[in-house]
Amino acid sequence: MGPHPAVAAIRLAVRRVLHDILNDQARASTVAGARPLVLAACSGGADSMALASALVFEARKLGVRGGGVTIDHGLQAGSAARATDVAHRLRGLGLDPVEALGVTVGRQGGPEAAARDARYAALEACAASLGAAAVLLGHTRDDQAETVLLGLARGSGTRSLAGMAAISGPGGRYRRPFLLLDRDTTRKACLVQGIDVWEDPHNADPAYARARVRHEALPVLEKSLGRGVVASLARTAQLFRDDADALDQWAANAAREVVADEAPDGRPGGALDTAKLYTLPPAVRRRVLRMAAVEAGSPSGSLFARHVEELDRLVTGWRGQGPINLPGGVEARRRNGRLVIRRAIASD
Amino acid sequence: MGPHPAVAAIRLAVRRVLHDILNDQARASTVAGARPLVLAACSGGADSMALASALVFEARKLGVRGGGVTIDHGLQAGSAARATDVAHRLRGLGLDPVEALGVTVGRQGGPEAAARDARYAALEACAASLGAAAVLLGHTRDDQAETVLLGLARGSGTRSLAGMAAISGPGGRYRRPFLLLDRDTTRKACLVQGIDVWEDPHNADPAYARARVRHEALPVLEKSLGRGVVASLARTAQLFRDDADALDQWAANAAREVVADEAPDGRPGGALDTAKLYTLPPAVRRRVLRMAAVEAGSPSGSLFARHVEELDRLVTGWRGQGPINLPGGVEARRRNGRLVIRRAIASD
Repeated sequence: MGPHPAVAAIRLAVRRVLHDILNDQARASTVAGARPLVLAACSGGADSMALASALVFEARKLGVRGGGVTIDHGLQAGSAARATDVAHRLRGLGLDPVEALGVTVGRQGGPEAAARDARYAALEACAASLGAAAVLLGHTRDDQAETVLLGLARGSGTRSLAGMAAISGPGGRYRRPFLLLDRDTTRKACLVQGIDVWEDPHNADPAYARARVRHEALPVLEKSLGRGVVASLARTAQLFRDDADALDQWAANAAREVVADEAPDGRPGGALDTAKLYTLPPAVRRRVLRMAAVEAGSPSGSLFARHVEELDRLVTGWRGQGPINLPGGVEARRRNGRLVIRRAIASD
Repeated sequence: MGPHPAVAAIRLAVRRVLHDILNDQARASTVAGARPLVLAACSGGADSMALASALVFEARKLGVRGGGVTIDHGLQAGSAARATDVAHRLRGLGLDPVEALGVTVGRQGGPEAAARDARYAALEACAASLGAAAVLLGHTRDDQAETVLLGLARGSGTRSLAGMAAISGPGGRYRRPFLLLDRDTTRKACLVQGIDVWEDPHNADPAYARARVRHEALPVLEKSLGRGVVASLARTAQLFRDDADALDQWAANAAREVVADEAPDGRPGGALDTAKLYTLPPAVRRRVLRMAAVEAGSPSGSLFARHVEELDRLVTGWRGQGPINLPGGVEARRRNGRLVIRRAIASD
């Protein structure tokens, strides 16, 4: 008799990812025969404990070293003890090495974004110091659906709806084996393997947008639109990702073609040909303009759709308007059929 | 003192669309000086009664003839009398001509799709017989947000999330002046103008997916994600529309480039070069494959994402698999680096 279907499912998902990692290593490897280290990032919740348990099982069979890392965000009383306990349980499952890392969460971009930034910085440093080939993350299809809904609420278009990628980060370091599994499968897998799980109280705290989406919005959407809505949202995320990739590729090519020979005032820096910009499809033109603004120094996270719209009006709604100011002290100005986007010169 | 802000808003929205229609006429017109007829499609609800009232006001000022049309779907007891009453009220507002048309709703595609198909067929016939330049539809930003959520639940990608266009139909006949206004504005406009409105009980009937989205899903999403969610969904629809347009354009170009010289068995019909298909971004390749299947006779409405995925595997996951069957008796087969998609020959 084989393992419980939930356990079989989590193991298969992890096995596939480990195969990919080994294949990537085989193609790129300089050190033949080295056993790569793969880390499971673990909060102690069902998703990531299931991930850790599957990594232990599959790593052994495939000649991979399975390690673990847990992050103490320092946001709750007792969080350090909690992290120590999770690390202890990861070692108990058979992972080695295991690290518990404390981070300091800033305020940039709101509490959730700040915690995420601190977490990924710590994972990054940990993977580098241990020489890990990859870090596995336990995000499930339910997390993906929540991410899409949160992006939808921002109204910021295809890329923000594309959700999380199965492979991301520098060199494809982060892998998400469970993106096609539902959360319930990870819960069952922990239950039947007798693995204790711990629910982060933030996940149920209505102060957090994601918690509200999880506990309020998605259940009502499932009631209104049918149980398949989580799967649909996750599938939509993949389609959006492909769309966004294709459009980014088009925009990158178009960006080279719309570069004018020189800025109209002779200063160096990107001048774009507005006549060529005008002929691009709106979706491509807006991406080209966004890229140009970011390249000129406008921070990507502060550059909103309305800024890009305003830039676009310099191309498509030209009636002699003056220069516009973009985040990061970047200025865009149209003159003589040229659009110049660059840091404003401080007046002195 | 000017009109109430809600009345000013609906009139401005209609005025802009009438200006567009007049400009289009001026460019294309063969009959100089003819006063174009513009119809308001009206259910008797707040959105479309507000639309009718604004059409009466603006048509007079712009030298346009404003008419009205209401459809009796024959789905409720007393619906014929209701349609007669709505037509009477439209005439009372000052629209002329006004028609009340009965339709027979079939079953194709479910009750909502069948009612919509019957409605648009009747509007089409009415516009043609009256020689109308355009038909105005009262869809608001709230309708748009609902459409996006319904598309999301289907999980069928960017095009189905693109919602309703401001201009659609053959020759751009349908115009939606209120797509950027919220439903509340149309309600207020009716109230302050003393216009009685009638709510279609279907709009509140939880048997209909749209009614569930309106009364259950969107209120909870607003609670979870903030009041801006309707505006975000509508903005998202516009971004998706632009994305889908650009990708369709790319796919149409790519479709010409991947055509192989001839079908491998010498029969006429489209053979596609799999090596060229392979190099396309997935989002473009899937669109090319979808277009090819539709062109070969597979009905667009029956061709689902999973069919296109299967087609795609003939290109990207080739391991000698046999021909695949697509809706409409269309067969796709790979041989000698060629993908042939065409109607299967009946064996006899």
